[in-house]
Amino acid sequence: MSNRGLPLVDAAPTESEACCAPLACEPLTAGEAEELAPLFKAIADPVRLRLLSLIACHDGGEACVCDLTSAFDLTAPTISHHLKVLKQAGLIDSDRRGTWVYYRVRPGALTRLSALLRPRQAFAAVEA
Amino acid sequence: MSNRGLPLVDAAPTESEACCAPLACEPLTAGEAEELAPLFKAIADPVRLRLLSLIACHDGGEACVCDLTSAFDLTAPTISHHLKVLKQAGLIDSDRRGTWVYYRVRPGALTRLSALLRPRQAFAAVEA
Repeated sequence: MSNRGLPLVDAAPTESEACCAPLACEPLTAGEAEELAPLFKAIADPVRLRLLSLIACHDGGEACVCDLTSAFDLTAPTISHHLKVLKQAGLIDSDRRGTWVYYRVRPGALTRLSALLRPRQAFAAVEA
Repeated sequence: MSNRGLPLVDAAPTESEACCAPLACEPLTAGEAEELAPLFKAIADPVRLRLLSLIACHDGGEACVCDLTSAFDLTAPTISHHLKVLKQAGLIDSDRRGTWVYYRVRPGALTRLSALLRPRQAFAAVEA
């Protein structure tokens, strides 16, 4: 895997992070795990990971379905199915404008999953 | 979902983050997506999410299989199966010491997934 775009993800915590890090790591409850597992399931697919990536990296933070379909060797209905899974999981939003549907990621949903997996505070419960 | 342990995950970037954020968001390649999807699949299960959470939050960062089994209303072989899935995905390591096997999370693997989902740099490729 390349190191392009390598961020310093494990830099020292900022003052605000240090002050507000959880005092104690509290494991997920069964209910929280039941709620979160479907979000990870939605991205546990190579096509859906690439779709999220293409949307997140697209100019202006949103991508036309026409741009997305052209990036894959898959039919439009197959791409639409994967976009629907991502939308139903709450990971992306869409708007119809004119002929096309435009998709953008929901930063809050991604932040929630990202924070959950951060080793310093892994699996402390995080507000959506 | 409660707000206990709420970290300020979207605070302003630190200087080191700002300096080293990717200059351009580069979508995942098909190969990267194929490589990453199984890691998300491994955590896309409520029992495995809770197991990871229990291990990450356990005193000293590692948990005896005896502690883990007692937290679920599941048989020991079922817990062992889920731990094996997490280990095969590279998300946890284990050591046998005396009678028991001890598990700990692999921070690098979690960091990689967490960084991938951070909205500011979502889906820029991240070194393992």
